[in-house]
Amino acid sequence: MAQRHLDPTDPRLRPVGTAPTGEALAGYLRGQATEFLRALRLHRETGSGANGSEAAAEAARALRRSARRISASLHTFQPLLDSDWCETMRPELAWVSGTLAMEHAYTARLERLLTALHRLSGSTAFPAQVTGPDTTAGARAGDTGPRPPAAPDRGNLTVGAAKAGALLDRQLTLARTRAHSTALQALGSSRFHAVADKVAVLASEVPLLATAAATDLRPHATAAEERLTDAVTALPLVTAGNPYNAAALVHGLSPDTVPHPQDAPWHQVRLLLRLHRYAREALTGPKGNAVVDLRLLDAGQALNRHRDASEAAAAAAQAARTPRIAPATAYALGVLHADQRHEVEAARFAFQQAWQKETVGAS
Amino acid sequence: MAQRHLDPTDPRLRPVGTAPTGEALAGYLRGQATEFLRALRLHRETGSGANGSEAAAEAARALRRSARRISASLHTFQPLLDSDWCETMRPELAWVSGTLAMEHAYTARLERLLTALHRLSGSTAFPAQVTGPDTTAGARAGDTGPRPPAAPDRGNLTVGAAKAGALLDRQLTLARTRAHSTALQALGSSRFHAVADKVAVLASEVPLLATAAATDLRPHATAAEERLTDAVTALPLVTAGNPYNAAALVHGLSPDTVPHPQDAPWHQVRLLLRLHRYAREALTGPKGNAVVDLRLLDAGQALNRHRDASEAAAAAAQAARTPRIAPATAYALGVLHADQRHEVEAARFAFQQAWQKETVGAS
Repeated sequence: MAQRHLDPTDPRLRPVGTAPTGEALAGYLRGQATEFLRALRLHRETGSGANGSEAAAEAARALRRSARRISASLHTFQPLLDSDWCETMRPELAWVSGTLAMEHAYTARLERLLTALHRLSGSTAFPAQVTGPDTTAGARAGDTGPRPPAAPDRGNLTVGAAKAGALLDRQLTLARTRAHSTALQALGSSRFHAVADKVAVLASEVPLLATAAATDLRPHATAAEERLTDAVTALPLVTAGNPYNAAALVHGLSPDTVPHPQDAPWHQVRLLLRLHRYAREALTGPKGNAVVDLRLLDAGQALNRHRDASEAAAAAAQAARTPRIAPATAYALGVLHADQRHEVEAARFAFQQAWQKETVGAS
Repeated sequence: MAQRHLDPTDPRLRPVGTAPTGEALAGYLRGQATEFLRALRLHRETGSGANGSEAAAEAARALRRSARRISASLHTFQPLLDSDWCETMRPELAWVSGTLAMEHAYTARLERLLTALHRLSGSTAFPAQVTGPDTTAGARAGDTGPRPPAAPDRGNLTVGAAKAGALLDRQLTLARTRAHSTALQALGSSRFHAVADKVAVLASEVPLLATAAATDLRPHATAAEERLTDAVTALPLVTAGNPYNAAALVHGLSPDTVPHPQDAPWHQVRLLLRLHRYAREALTGPKGNAVVDLRLLDAGQALNRHRDASEAAAAAAQAARTPRIAPATAYALGVLHADQRHEVEAARFAFQQAWQKETVGAS
């Protein structure tokens, strides 16, 4: 696969008839630094009232996008760069993108959970009827032990779903508001201004080592890809490719499942996949985005969905631990948690399918 | 498909070089009636203390097996038989198999639910770690709103699973005990003795119409198969064949979902599939079981699993409606309900796969 992705004969990799070197990296970093500063200016112009305007949110996304790419390039191509500078810069960029990501994450998580609750509590369209010569199934389907009177009993679950939605709304809106002011404080902090200044310098001069101009970028990009493929190889892909393996909900009621430990290797692959994509961008230059492997994007989207469902499931489990909630609320949150854990399982299946396509295409 | 299953050139369908007629049906009914009486005698010998001995349970299974087959034959081949006799006999046989099925059903349902709870509350084996150049996912995975202190909080869910198991154990054991005494009363009732007497008569003389000896059984068996294929055609098989369609849990929190109305068409196909299998048995004679289509068995097993998971999910939802349960108990029951609804979805997928194989094999 490495050969396939980084074929030396690939014209994209030989912009001026030579292999991409430190110059290509410098160009990429300057471009991302400029992008960062543009987004920062935009963010300040659009201002940011509570919950942020759409333009401000877009500006924040652009800030994170460039911060992630700079951070990733410093990681993948560190041997070509001033290592002290890299080591001070990277955690700061991770702090910026991490801090700016929170508000959007809570907004998306709440939307995902309320959408799922809506789906789960819609009214049904199928007429209930069991016919045939044997009434066993009919008799048994109805007989699941003593039942309280239908009306209040039936109201119960719907009320539970509504209460669960209100509880999640309260908790995640509060978390989002906190994340919003944390982000605003961060953007106004001297720590952030120091980062912005460093990025401003980066936009004009990239701290390349003297050797960088003669150094081929591709082996470093290949190393990044190999870190990805090694991590993917360690994933339980055979299980994931077998539908309804019920693996994601295993231990769903165990004490240690918020966050769910079995998700960690998948989260890590998500990060390594992103590093691989950004390394390709650095090699292929500004047009990199246009030619990025679609299957790689599919796999990445599956892993984003995996991450989002995993955290939504954790939020539902977390809400269920709120003291003094009604049993019907807790029940609805349990159904919701399991529903999102199955989304996690579905996302792993989707990733396995996308990844298979990729390796098949490579062979 | 009809041609494939009921190929007139199939030697099994021409035991003595002729098409199977009323005589074959009579032979099959006499055999099943004898089987019924043998199982009944065995059941009386093995006695039946509370929860019944293993031998008594096996005898009850054999009683139901033959009762179902006689009832099914009366349904499929009624035109060859005395219709008044059929109309009085069939509901009685359905009552017998239905009544005897309950105790076993509650036992199996409790076992299924406790097994699922055990799987859901086991402790995990994966180390939690998220590495990589970007700490965003790490930070977010942990940050899902304010958390109460870990220890009691973590105990909570496990306690919930344990309490849920105890609650289900109480409710389903009570239901099973009731079903057991109901079955004993039924077996001692004059109504049952009347059925047993009718079956004893059937074992020696089958009320065939005069025309039956010259009537080909196969068109009636074909009609049974067509009722099955029509019902299967009406199922949402495209959705079912698409893994993780999340269809089974839709409306999982709606007021009308115990029993789940969307399951009814699948339950009905399960019954029609059984009728089709028994009709084949009647045609192919005593060796029928040996030559029954394995894919048909797979499809049938998938539908049994569908039925069992559907009723287990309903029992979990039902238990969650018990007044004054703890939120942690209700949460565990919600997770369990959703888990079983996904079993329902998985069973539909398995049925679709088995059924596809079948039609592929036929073409």
